[in-house]
Amino acid sequence: MTAAGKRVVIVGAGFGGLSAAAALAKTDADVTLVDRRNHHLFQPLLYQVATAGLAPTQIASPVRLILGRKRNIHIELDEVSGVDLAARQVELGQRTIEYDQLVIATGATHAYFGRDEWATHAPGLKSLEDALSLRSRVLLALESAELDMSPDARERLLTFVVIGAGPTGVELAGAIAELTRRALACDFRRIRGQRAKIILIDSGERVLATFCPGLSAYAKGALEKLGVEVRLEQRVVRCDAGGVDLDGERIEAQTVIWAAGVQASPAGRWLGAETDRAGRVFVNADLSLPGHPEVFVIGDSAHVRQPTGRPVPGVAPAAKQAGEYVAKVVAARIAGRPAPRAFRYADFGSLATIGRKAAVADLGAIKLSGFLAWVFWCAAHVWFLIGFRNRVQVVLDWAWSYLTFERGARLVFEAVTRGRDAPMRVASPPAEARIAS
Amino acid sequence: MTAAGKRVVIVGAGFGGLSAAAALAKTDADVTLVDRRNHHLFQPLLYQVATAGLAPTQIASPVRLILGRKRNIHIELDEVSGVDLAARQVELGQRTIEYDQLVIATGATHAYFGRDEWATHAPGLKSLEDALSLRSRVLLALESAELDMSPDARERLLTFVVIGAGPTGVELAGAIAELTRRALACDFRRIRGQRAKIILIDSGERVLATFCPGLSAYAKGALEKLGVEVRLEQRVVRCDAGGVDLDGERIEAQTVIWAAGVQASPAGRWLGAETDRAGRVFVNADLSLPGHPEVFVIGDSAHVRQPTGRPVPGVAPAAKQAGEYVAKVVAARIAGRPAPRAFRYADFGSLATIGRKAAVADLGAIKLSGFLAWVFWCAAHVWFLIGFRNRVQVVLDWAWSYLTFERGARLVFEAVTRGRDAPMRVASPPAEARIAS
Repeated sequence: MTAAGKRVVIVGAGFGGLSAAAALAKTDADVTLVDRRNHHLFQPLLYQVATAGLAPTQIASPVRLILGRKRNIHIELDEVSGVDLAARQVELGQRTIEYDQLVIATGATHAYFGRDEWATHAPGLKSLEDALSLRSRVLLALESAELDMSPDARERLLTFVVIGAGPTGVELAGAIAELTRRALACDFRRIRGQRAKIILIDSGERVLATFCPGLSAYAKGALEKLGVEVRLEQRVVRCDAGGVDLDGERIEAQTVIWAAGVQASPAGRWLGAETDRAGRVFVNADLSLPGHPEVFVIGDSAHVRQPTGRPVPGVAPAAKQAGEYVAKVVAARIAGRPAPRAFRYADFGSLATIGRKAAVADLGAIKLSGFLAWVFWCAAHVWFLIGFRNRVQVVLDWAWSYLTFERGARLVFEAVTRGRDAPMRVASPPAEARIAS
Repeated sequence: MTAAGKRVVIVGAGFGGLSAAAALAKTDADVTLVDRRNHHLFQPLLYQVATAGLAPTQIASPVRLILGRKRNIHIELDEVSGVDLAARQVELGQRTIEYDQLVIATGATHAYFGRDEWATHAPGLKSLEDALSLRSRVLLALESAELDMSPDARERLLTFVVIGAGPTGVELAGAIAELTRRALACDFRRIRGQRAKIILIDSGERVLATFCPGLSAYAKGALEKLGVEVRLEQRVVRCDAGGVDLDGERIEAQTVIWAAGVQASPAGRWLGAETDRAGRVFVNADLSLPGHPEVFVIGDSAHVRQPTGRPVPGVAPAAKQAGEYVAKVVAARIAGRPAPRAFRYADFGSLATIGRKAAVADLGAIKLSGFLAWVFWCAAHVWFLIGFRNRVQVVLDWAWSYLTFERGARLVFEAVTRGRDAPMRVASPPAEARIAS
């Protein structure tokens, strides 16, 4: 077995790319980690930023802070535009980086099933920008409703629609219910005592469809106790600036959030590879690209068949495990050692939280719901947050907000402006003016 | 003496407006507090957000969190467009709010002395948006320099110019020096070991001109020890995308920051009132508008003569004191009591920090510099931060960063994009798309 060259390029600093890089820090590899964002994001808690429970710094860490001191890891903040498989080069606009082995871990984004024009009206939640933008939307809807609006306009402003009842949708609906209930009970004058309408829509038969039916039923009940209207087996046929259309019904809503589908990043296109319908690249049992043993695709960008026949799910633990596995393969090849056997995903179960003291945990044989599941959920999430400091801060923050019901992150950074009788918008200069080159 | 009506409108939730509202919470007044931002900002620490030392949530508090539960205070997030003095109405686009007494506390913004086109190239620091934008600029300059740039381009990227050596300019220059020195020592590969060039320019004879000469000299020395090049009695004659021109000298710099002048908000225009050159409204000894005893202008928007002949300075303690004073006048009038005598500003001294363990304090008879002044500065700033929780968080954060030199807030929220050979920019969709109405 010939030893491979040492130049390893990893694209993406999410759970997969970061864990691959961290595992390679102890080896002979010469690693370049490229991402177009300067931070690793703890996506499972992103909905808390969107609902003003946590601040961005509490769930994001600069990649240089995590890996900057590892001597064999070189971090580049840049945008990948393609891959030249024949030349073994990653393309970044005008320049290229050569690799001996390449790991693609570029994740996924929202999918609108061909209705990309819905993105403006029903934004999704994948990045810190998405979360901050959603936070502004939700907070400004309440602020607008507090001004002298007509009853119809006020009702529209106080209606929040979440499309998709997977973990993200359930968590968002629950968190918006808690945020608005608390805010409307105390902090306003004209709309004090009113109730926000939170509607969670899914075309499936139950919420949290990947959990066991008992936990789905518990979650639905917990959502309803929080005041969320759960509508199952209903399909959104149109999103516009004023709300959504279901089959034969119109819901007027200022805030509509998309949590219904994801689509893999353009990795498949870069590689000219075969993908599934969600754009995930089909890979071999060792996560390498068919025909290209020197290229790996991991995490949400990859379609990995399990012995059960079902693909490995697009969750953080799976991406982390894939990153660690690939690091072993890559390191073994550099050392000229035989590579480990096929990747096996160890499923430790699924967790989702509905709100204060209510969560579900599907841990294979063990099913938990309610307060105990919520404590388990908190512990697991804090544990997996990157960096000791973030852990401490998040614990303090949760303890504080548990004791006081306060949401300190309720900031809208921008000044507002209003058109005639229109709900308020933020008055940002165009991005050009804000960050001139 | 006839009692005045109870309707009090306060415009602006900065130090002046907030302290006026808080003081009126205990009275009979019916208060409406209007601001176009939803948060109160602790501006003295804004430079720390701009240099990744603190996160926005740590220096900003939603106004509703501070005052939302006071029964007689109604908070509105909206944009004031003018005042109708005759009709006693505040105008907000299409709608109006009637007042019996009005407090204008709209603060100040940067002044470019007629060179408004410089604003794009040399942004100032007044809002959280400004700070986040500046943070992105500084961090992206380092990231761009790390990519394969020519030596000239790299030098330009690693040059930071701060115009104006008042407290904000000094604090920014010191903080950028600390941030870049630390980052360049450890976190990068290609630019590791290089030095950033931080140039602080002022047309005056000394830095911190409002402090005593001894402290100015100490501050200059402390800045130079941090590697800041201090250039006094030099004037910027041009700012453009590539840097700045002094009289007869060109400095190529990617990042230029404006800390040279402030200008009062448009309050003078709204009121048709006489203002000084900085746009501050001349007010009576009781802070009321000449000819309109029912209208008050306070804080950075007002020009208040002191017995010494010099105007009250535009600093946070002065605005707070003015807010508290005006609340007493307003409440006395509502109660039909005689109002207190003329406003007197109690000057407790000035503070400025240069960096880790280096600050100056000019407390009248007592002058402090160095470590002791820094401890005093920390204590004073934490003490005056609004809200118990923020205090605790800031203390923890400072303790952490003191012990570890870490700067956890080094986040660039946006993904980057690059033109051909150009430094990177953030790739934001236009504001319209981000927060659709």
